[in-house]
Formats: sequence, C-alpha cells, structure tokens
Amino acid sequence: MKKIPAAILGATGSVGQRFVQLLDQHPWFDVVCLTGSERTIGTRYGETCRWLLTDPMPEWAKDIVVSPTDPAKVDQPLVFSALPTDIAKTVEADFAAKGSMVCSNASAFRMADDVPILIPEANAEHAKLVEVQRSQRGWKGGIVTNSNCTSTGITVAFKAMLDAFGIDKAFVVSMQALSGAGFPGVPSMDVIDNLIPFIGGEEHKVQTEPLKMLGTINGNKIDFADFPISAHTNRVGITDGHTVCASLALKKKPSVAEAIEAIRSYQAPEICRDLPSTPRPVLLYRNEDNRPQPRMDRMTGKGMTTVVGRLREDPIFDVKMVICSHNTIRGAAGGSVYNAELLTKMGYLS
Amino acid sequence: MKKIPAAILGATGSVGQRFVQLLDQHPWFDVVCLTGSERTIGTRYGETCRWLLTDPMPEWAKDIVVSPTDPAKVDQPLVFSALPTDIAKTVEADFAAKGSMVCSNASAFRMADDVPILIPEANAEHAKLVEVQRSQRGWKGGIVTNSNCTSTGITVAFKAMLDAFGIDKAFVVSMQALSGAGFPGVPSMDVIDNLIPFIGGEEHKVQTEPLKMLGTINGNKIDFADFPISAHTNRVGITDGHTVCASLALKKKPSVAEAIEAIRSYQAPEICRDLPSTPRPVLLYRNEDNRPQPRMDRMTGKGMTTVVGRLREDPIFDVKMVICSHNTIRGAAGGSVYNAELLTKMGYLS
Amino acid sequence: MKKIPAAILGATGSVGQRFVQLLDQHPWFDVVCLTGSERTIGTRYGETCRWLLTDPMPEWAKDIVVSPTDPAKVDQPLVFSALPTDIAKTVEADFAAKGSMVCSNASAFRMADDVPILIPEANAEHAKLVEVQRSQRGWKGGIVTNSNCTSTGITVAFKAMLDAFGIDKAFVVSMQALSGAGFPGVPSMDVIDNLIPFIGGEEHKVQTEPLKMLGTINGNKIDFADFPISAHTNRVGITDGHTVCASLALKKKPSVAEAIEAIRSYQAPEICRDLPSTPRPVLLYRNEDNRPQPRMDRMTGKGMTTVVGRLREDPIFDVKMVICSHNTIRGAAGGSVYNAELLTKMGYLS
Amino acid sequence: MKKIPAAILGATGSVGQRFVQLLDQHPWFDVVCLTGSERTIGTRYGETCRWLLTDPMPEWAKDIVVSPTDPAKVDQPLVFSALPTDIAKTVEADFAAKGSMVCSNASAFRMADDVPILIPEANAEHAKLVEVQRSQRGWKGGIVTNSNCTSTGITVAFKAMLDAFGIDKAFVVSMQALSGAGFPGVPSMDVIDNLIPFIGGEEHKVQTEPLKMLGTINGNKIDFADFPISAHTNRVGITDGHTVCASLALKKKPSVAEAIEAIRSYQAPEICRDLPSTPRPVLLYRNEDNRPQPRMDRMTGKGMTTVVGRLREDPIFDVKMVICSHNTIRGAAGGSVYNAELLTKMGYLS
Repeated sequence: MKKIPAAILGATGSVGQRFVQLLDQHPWFDVVCLTGSERTIGTRYGETCRWLLTDPMPEWAKDIVVSPTDPAKVDQPLVFSALPTDIAKTVEADFAAKGSMVCSNASAFRMADDVPILIPEANAEHAKLVEVQRSQRGWKGGIVTNSNCTSTGITVAFKAMLDAFGIDKAFVVSMQALSGAGFPGVPSMDVIDNLIPFIGGEEHKVQTEPLKMLGTINGNKIDFADFPISAHTNRVGITDGHTVCASLALKKKPSVAEAIEAIRSYQAPEICRDLPSTPRPVLLYRNEDNRPQPRMDRMTGKGMTTVVGRLREDPIFDVKMVICSHNTIRGAAGGSVYNAELLTKMGYLS
Repeated sequence: MKKIPAAILGATGSVGQRFVQLLDQHPWFDVVCLTGSERTIGTRYGETCRWLLTDPMPEWAKDIVVSPTDPAKVDQPLVFSALPTDIAKTVEADFAAKGSMVCSNASAFRMADDVPILIPEANAEHAKLVEVQRSQRGWKGGIVTNSNCTSTGITVAFKAMLDAFGIDKAFVVSMQALSGAGFPGVPSMDVIDNLIPFIGGEEHKVQTEPLKMLGTINGNKIDFADFPISAHTNRVGITDGHTVCASLALKKKPSVAEAIEAIRSYQAPEICRDLPSTPRPVLLYRNEDNRPQPRMDRMTGKGMTTVVGRLREDPIFDVKMVICSHNTIRGAAGGSVYNAELLTKMGYLS
Repeated sequence: MKKIPAAILGATGSVGQRFVQLLDQHPWFDVVCLTGSERTIGTRYGETCRWLLTDPMPEWAKDIVVSPTDPAKVDQPLVFSALPTDIAKTVEADFAAKGSMVCSNASAFRMADDVPILIPEANAEHAKLVEVQRSQRGWKGGIVTNSNCTSTGITVAFKAMLDAFGIDKAFVVSMQALSGAGFPGVPSMDVIDNLIPFIGGEEHKVQTEPLKMLGTINGNKIDFADFPISAHTNRVGITDGHTVCASLALKKKPSVAEAIEAIRSYQAPEICRDLPSTPRPVLLYRNEDNRPQPRMDRMTGKGMTTVVGRLREDPIFDVKMVICSHNTIRGAAGGSVYNAELLTKMGYLS
Repeated sequence: MKKIPAAILGATGSVGQRFVQLLDQHPWFDVVCLTGSERTIGTRYGETCRWLLTDPMPEWAKDIVVSPTDPAKVDQPLVFSALPTDIAKTVEADFAAKGSMVCSNASAFRMADDVPILIPEANAEHAKLVEVQRSQRGWKGGIVTNSNCTSTGITVAFKAMLDAFGIDKAFVVSMQALSGAGFPGVPSMDVIDNLIPFIGGEEHKVQTEPLKMLGTINGNKIDFADFPISAHTNRVGITDGHTVCASLALKKKPSVAEAIEAIRSYQAPEICRDLPSTPRPVLLYRNEDNRPQPRMDRMTGKGMTTVVGRLREDPIFDVKMVICSHNTIRGAAGGSVYNAELLTKMGYLS
C-alpha cells in the first residue's frame, strides 16, 4: 500500500508536536509538509521548533522546511490541523474546499451541523457527514474534528452506559492536566501547592460536545443525545492525563456489577476495531479502589484507552465513577490520527 | 478573668500540634498539660515532638513534660482531643464522665445521638446536647466534636443556602489537601504529577455529617437535615486547604445574584459572633472567576473563614459553586478551639 | 515623627506588590504614589493590579490612581523601584538627580562604582557611597540597590564566616523558588516533576555581587572581597524561598563547632540593629540534620532572617553548609525597605 | 541459545518490581523465581504485590508463587537482589557460596575488597574480581553490586573526564528523585513546595563509591581513584531522575570544546558495547543551555544513558557540568541487569 501524503498545520505548537510524534513511522500516512507561523516559515523544523516532548524529535521532521499555512501552497490529500481556533475558522474550510480531508483538533467547526466531532470507538458512523459537506458545501474534501480533551474520555465511558442503560442526567467534575493549556500555558505559581477551579470556556464545551458525539445521524445532521450534563472544570498541577468524577442517572437501573460489566464488555463499532490507532482496549475497568490515577493510567493502550474505576452506587443518581484519559494523545492529536484512519478505511481519502 | 486550665490529648501528632499553635496566647484558655503515647511519656514536649508547622513551637510548650492520656492523671476542666478514633472511643467518655468538657477532633462520638458535631457559626444551639449527656449518661462534663475537615466548609456554605432557600439535593466533589492525612500520611510518589481519587471512609462522612450539623434539635437528639448528598472525594498534591465543587438543588429558586447575596449576608448566630476564634467574616464571597484557590485563600480570616466563589447556574440543579476551607485550622484544631469558646460562653465550662 | 512620603515605581508587578504589602502600616514611611506602565496609568490600583499575594491588598492601596513613572510627576523624597532593568537604567538616575533617594530592586546600577549593593546586616557602612554620588554626579538624592535574591542569603552567611575566619574560595549551588521569576514567570510544565538547571544571567550575578557586598570602602569606591565564587543555579518547583548548598575554604581553620558558633553569634552592625525591618535574628542556625527547608524556614523573622544549617566538614574545602532565605522578602522588596530605613537613620533622607 | 534461569530476591518492593519489568522478555534471562518477605510467601505475585510502575505487571509474573529468600530453596544460577542491606549481608553470601551469581542492588558488599561495584560502560574489567571471590572465599558463584543511584551517573560522566584529562578534585551537588527512597518513602508534606537538603548516609556513598568504580584492579583488589569528592545531596519533589551539578578540577586543562568532545566521543569498553542493556549512547551531550532536565531526559536510551549538558568553565576548578541519570533504571535494577549480561558474556555464568 502506498502511504498517503499528509501535512500538519500549526506543527510547531504543543499539539502540532504530538502530531509529529504520533505520525512517526505511521503505517498509512507519510508527513511531508509542516506549516507554521510567519516567523518560522522557511526555517528547518529541527531548528525552529522548541520541542516539548520527552521522546526525541523524529529525524525526518528535523529537515522539513516549514511552509506557510496556505491552501494554495499545501496540497496534501490529508491535513492534520493544530491551528488556533480563529485561524482554523477560515483556513480549514479553504483546505476542505480544495480537496483535502482535514482532521482537526480545533474547536472552530465542532458545532457546525454537517461537521462531525468524531470519536471512532463511539460514533464512527458520524463520519458520513463528510458526504453532506460535499453535497451541500461543494467541498471536494471535508472536515472532521475531534472533541475537547475533557469531553473525550467522558464520551467513551458514557457511550457504554448509554448503549446499555440509557442516560437521564450526568454530573461531571474534571481535574485537568497542564498540557491541555499548551505552552507556556499555566504559570507555575498558579499550580504549585494550588489548583485553579476555572478553565475559560471549558464547562460549556464539556456540557455540549459529548451530547453531539453521543447523538444519532438524522438526515443531514446529528440529533444530540437528550440528557443534560452539569460540569465543573478544574486545573491541577499534573503534566498529562485528565481525571473526571462522574455521577449518572440512568434510564434502566443496573446493579453496580452490571454497570461495570457494561464498561468491560463495550466494543468499538466493527469498522474501527483494527485500525492502527485503535485503543486496546477501548475501555479498561480497574478494580483497585484508588484507580484510575493520571500518572499511573494515562499511558494505557499507548495513551488511547479510556480508563474507568470506582464504579459504585450514587445516593442521588444511580452510579458514580472515575474516568481518566490522556488529554494530548486520546484527547487531541491521537484522536485526530485515529479519525484519519477511519476516514481512510471508509474511502473518503482516495 | 482567670484563664481556664486545659489539656491537649495526643499533643505530639499533626492535629495536636495545631492545637498547641492555636492555643498559644489564647485569651481564655491556658494549656498546662500535653499528653502523648507510651513512648513520649515523661519526656519534654520540645524534645519529643517532631514539629511539623512552619510557625515555631511556642516556648511554653517546650518544657511541658508529656503526660499519659489517662483521666486519672489529667484533671483539667477543658480537654482538647486529637486522639485516634479507636482510643478516643473509651478515653473521651472517661474524661467526660469525670467532669472535663472534651472538645474533640476525633470521629468516635460524632454520630452518637446526644453528642453534637458543633460548628458555632452554623449550629451553636446544638451545644445544648451537653445537657442531655449530663442527664442521661450522668457525665459531669461532656463531649462536643468537630466534623470531618471536608464537611466543615461544605456545612457553612450550605447553611447560608439552607436558611435562605432550602436545599433539596447536593452534589459535592472534593480536592483535598495532604495535611488532612496527618504525617507521614500520603507518600510523595502518590501525588507528584498525580492525584488519588479515593480517601478511605471519607465519602460516607461527607454524605452524613453535614446533615447532622444542619439538622435541628428535637428533644434529646438532632433531626437530620432532610436532603441527600452525593460525594466524590479526591486527594491532590496541596499542603493545606480543601476545595469543593458543589451543585445544589434548592427549594426556592433564587437568581444567581440572590444566591450570592445569601452567602454575603449570612450571619453567625448572635452568641458566637464575638468569640476569640470567630471567623471574620464567617463566609467570604470572591468575585474573581478563578477563585477560591487553596494556596491563595486558605488563610482568610486566620484560616477560619469559609471562602466561596464561582456561584453560577447549574444546568441540572439550581446553582453551582466552589468552596474552600482550611482543613487543619477551621476543619480541625481551630474548630475545636472555637467550640470550646462557645461552651465557655454558654456556661458549660464553669 | 512625621512619616516620609514614598512612591513605588512599577507597583503592579510581583515585586511591586511585595513593596505595597511590606510598606502597609510602616512606622516611618507612607506610600502615597504608585506608578505603572502605560496601560495602567490613570486607573485605580485596586482594579488594575492582578494581586498575586496571599495576604489581601491593603485598603489604602486600592484607591490610589496609578501614576506614570516620570520624575517630573512623582516627587516623593523616597522612591522604591521595582522597575525592569532596562527602564531603571535611565529613570532611577533621573529620580536621584532630582532629589529622591531611590531604593532599587533592579540590577541596573548594582555594579556602578559609586552605588552600593546594600545589605544592612552585612555592609551598612557602604551606604556612605551616597555622598560620593552627590559630590561626583551632582545628584540631590541617590541610589542604593539590593542584590540579586540568591546573593542575599549567601552574603549574610558568608559575612559571618569572613569576619571570623576569612574566606579563600566558595562553591555555591542554588535551588531557587519560582517567585524569583515574576509572573507569569516559569511555565508550570517546566517544573512539575522536573527542574531547570539554568537561570539566565544568574550565575554571573551570584559570582560577583556578594564580593562587592563583602568588600570594603576605599575612598570613592568598594574594594571587592578577594576570593572566587563558583556558582551553579537551578530552578525548582517551590513557590518561595531559595536554598543554597555552599562549600567554603577558609583562611583560618575552625572546628565545625567554632564555625557554627560564628553563625550563631554574628551581630549586625550597631546602626541597623533596631530598625523596623531588622531580621530577628539576623542569622538563625538550625540543629536538625534536615534543615533549613524552604517551606518550613522561609518565613523565619518575618521572612528577613537568613537560616543556616548542616554545617559540617568538607572533604576538599573546610566547611559545607545549607543556607535558606526568602527571595521576595529578604531577597527583594523587604531588603529595599530595610535599606531605606538605614538611609533614614543615617540622615540621607531628610 | 537457552535462556538462563533467574531469581529476583525481594521482588515485591520498588526495586524488585523494576527487575520484574526490565527482565520481561529479556533475550538471555528467564525469571522463574520471585522471593518475598514472610507475609508474602506462598501467595501469587500478582495478588500480593502492590505494583507501583506505570507499565502493567507482566503476565508471566502474576502467577509466580512467592518463595522464601532462602538459598536452600532457590537454586537459580543467576540471582538479582533487591534485598534490604541488613538481610543482603548474610543472604547474598550464602547464595554466592552455593553457586549463584548474585547481581545486587544492595550496599552490603559494595565496599568489600573483592567485590566489584560494576558499571560496565566504565569498569567492565572489575568483573574479574569474581575470580578472587572464588579462589579466596571458596564461593562457587559470586557477587557483583551496582552502585548507589546517585553515584552512577557521576561515575559515567567522570570516567570520560578521567580518561581524557585526569581528575584532581570534584564537587557534586545532587537533586534526587523520590523513587530513590522506595515506597512509601518520602512523605508528601516534605516535598510539596519544599525540598530536603539531607539524605541519610548518601553523601558518604557519593564521596566514596565513584572512586572505587573509577579505580584500577591491582592483584586481588581495587586501587581507588586518587581524588577527593565533596558531595551535598538533596531530595526534591520529582518522581524519577537524579540531577547532579558537578565542578571538576582536571590534571590537563582542556578547552570547553575539548571537554565536551571527550563526553561525546566516550566509548564503553569493547566487551560491553553490544549487550542487550547497553546504553545507546553511553553518554549523551545536550547543547541546549537548560538541559538536561529530569522529566525530559531521564528516559534517554531506555533510561540507561547518562545525559550531560551545560559544560562550561568553572571559576575555581576547570569545568562545570550538569549530569542526569535515571535512578531506578540505570541507577538500580537496569544496572544490575546490565551487570548480569556482562558476567554472562565473560563466562562467569556458565
């Protein structure tokens, strides 16, 4: 199989770097173009990029000369976007119009009716909205997004509950890692011996994005899942890995054992079970009473698995649980790569 | 006024040390006895105690020779207890029987029908249960307890809501400081770049103690407040200061502004408004969107004030808020000292 | 005594805020002017300043309208400078020329021949250089600086050794707190589960400033102390308090006990022993084998005391020790306030 | 090639667990026996061991029934020891006498004349002391140790300097990770917003062990390297990775460029260049002015590489540098595994 040429838009930032790392030696995709801001155009990536990851920068990336983020000059059929939302708004649409499939980590198009927030292990069929984009907007390519990093783990765990029991209401409180704020991101004085009970715009995202992801296609758009989510979001002094305490009111009333079994037995849709980035397992339930923990569990399944634990009765709703997910792998760049694999398998990238 | 002689039981541990610190130069009480475990009896406190606080050990404490925790040998009218729960079970009752007023930080008697969990700014009138203890048990003294450290801040903030609007249901998720676990307490490897979503026994306490504190005296016992609390409790890498995200369903439906005003205008019962340890203010509402924060707000009102912020609409219940309280001052030793002051004022200590 | 009117230049930054805090209710000085950058001029300090300290902003400061940092518009006889070095270079000289005594935390003038780096408990007599400034430069006021925050603790401890035994050589390795980098300062991702073995420009300062402070006045300038210092400087994830490991080769060869005694018995010059900010004690020697520690010891003497411990034999030089000092109190704003008190006592501020 | 059966003594502790992890799928060794304390004997390792590593416990280990640490019952030719020093003292000798090659992480035998502290990339030839053990003590097997975790990185970096330029004197100051203290190890309250400038016994080890490792075989014993080391050792709030600031006086006076080149070009002895655990590279020099950093660099070469940076002139000695090494991989279990590989290649394990 010939590899599909790919570009990474906004490759020098922290999410862009994760794309570079996760696409290193990818079996299907071949990164041949990295774009950056005005300042970096024309420089070698290896010189211009302040590399933030603990794995070293892949050799092939070092010599790539940074391109402008300009659809007229970047023509790969597959484009990963780590752009800031304001820039993504216009640029991603231009790429999609010209023929690229854009797998985006930006929030710009997440709430557009015909753009899916794709999370293959939960809603692979939403990818079909690409056809709506093509017919309605006349795009030759298309856009799929991945969700906000906190919404990701919540959605995978909730999908197992929704399928098995139906969901009526959900409370979620997050304790989020620092890498979610990029670099330089959160000042150290704010999180040493401290936490910040506020992340701008985050609670709204967490209260809405999972409902779109857990919704069902109805013609040209998604009918959102029909239950309210109440979210509190907090920043804590942890490098990677978002932890969420969740309480769920369910339509059916399972025992704790049945609810745990629903987590354990959840299967991704058949079409995405053997993609290169498929989490193995999709959901892991841990029995220890003090897990999941972000430092211990974030790298489960190469950072793609959603880890759940402490499922127990809730005195107001039905069940409580703790959910942990790697925010810059499953919740950002890794999610977009997984999305691109699904699109490839579904034939949208030929 | 002649000072009341006092003893501290279990004075060498971390809560015991807070008692020593907070009672330094107390205007009403004079600590003349410090008790400790077998190993420490007969040694000077200044030599035997591994002092954990950043303020230096008071000079007067250094020379006190540690006594056994034995009611036959300790006869102060006022006794502060920082004993482990299992020991407290028998020893505190013995002290109360003999005539001491025991102000305890232990959980041993918290759920006894005739023992109040006292939090003067919320339930000063519960102190009257001491009379029930005396009449029913024949004790010459009595026992009052303070609550679990996490329940404390919750209860003060909830009291303002309860009085103003009535409470139907409450979700709370705590992010708790390390000092709550004593010393050596939590291993550092567990909280560096990590958090622990579990604290043994804590969720049960947080789901029940506030209901007793917010209840009303009915004859010889307390009728608990009649609403369910669902709690998730987490340990995070912070030295002092517990932070709680709370969502409340209220009986009346205030606007956000009205709910904030209820926090701002809450007044402690008249009898406890000018005690030496009265928090000033009892409740502080902060307007910044990212407060309260434990490092920044824990010492408000000398560590006795409950700080609230981010009061906003909740999409499922009515209001959300963030509550911060110093766990070893307001939530432990400082609370017991405040209780003793109330008992003195009410005449139970003469 | 009528209080001396004072201005704080650069009052909105992190050092500026420490000045505001430390000058609250100062017995001699009365802050009547706060200056800030273009953006803040004309706004109320209470609204414009993002307050970073845990003690609340003093009430009097809230209503002060921020002034431009312009000697034509600020005419207090006493001026505290928390300006960035590049701005300090011209502005401080203008203030000094016009008649203000400038007590500066900036490094701009530290190495000028006729400007002292003043640390009263070690080199109070260096203040006399103000007379040289006046006679040679024609300034009506003058400039005194305090040293780099890391140099401060080193200098106080070394002064005791120098006086008692003479110093031949010194190795120092610092582990420095985050507040030294201001705000936003060090990104949190750089110091969670990590440290940075580099602070730009710091090693040069630590290798030179103590030698000027420990030097002797010779006519119109200072003869530097005559021994080499080798410094490694590191940033660690601690909010406040710099810790330094030092090894010293001494001219005389004291026993460990004699060296400890020299620390314990060190006295500040008579003239600065009873100033309002005088550290009490100047030097504290701790006997515990694991002290000083920054969280435990930084607030000793209200943050003005230099704490020393672990004095022991060095296998290459003569003695090793650990030194801890509060970097934003003794090492920054508190040092400047102490300098101003000394200048007042010496009559340079009338 | 048939794999060599191996046992791990003290397999349930933190270093024991690292052995289990690093020996998973080892190409030469096959762990068939795990020993533990009284409490764990007869239980399955998977049930009895509180696993502390982020990689999951290998499947094969889960079902091994824990054996007593008794040479009469454990007869593998290769034995890895993670025993406490006091137990190691007698037990390791018994194993060696009976015929096992003991690769030990304990300090019990490190200073015995005929026992090498082995660090293949620096002193592979010291392994020959095993023959002295056999001839003088009549052991059928033998003991080799690895050094204290802090000494390891120092020794590798110093070896390159010693070979190229000779060393006269060395100052080292460590900032050591928490995992070096085992579990539960350091209480969290001691290192949040804090550091501890003391680690019991550590400075003596760091001042002596490198000299033995850098020494030369002289008949039946090692002549220690002939230069003094002065060490300060500190504990900081970092999970893994020890960082050392070092200043070296050298016999020859290289330029900074020449000294860096000596680090870059250092080669391990030929015999250990292609062993399975050989660090690749042995030494890595980083050019960035703020590296090495423990979180970023500890996993270089799968945790076996010693990373050096910031080599620059020293104002007292000749060069300064920063050294970083993974304390529980290169500095503990990984070092012992590497030692066993060397012994195998040299024929001591047939």
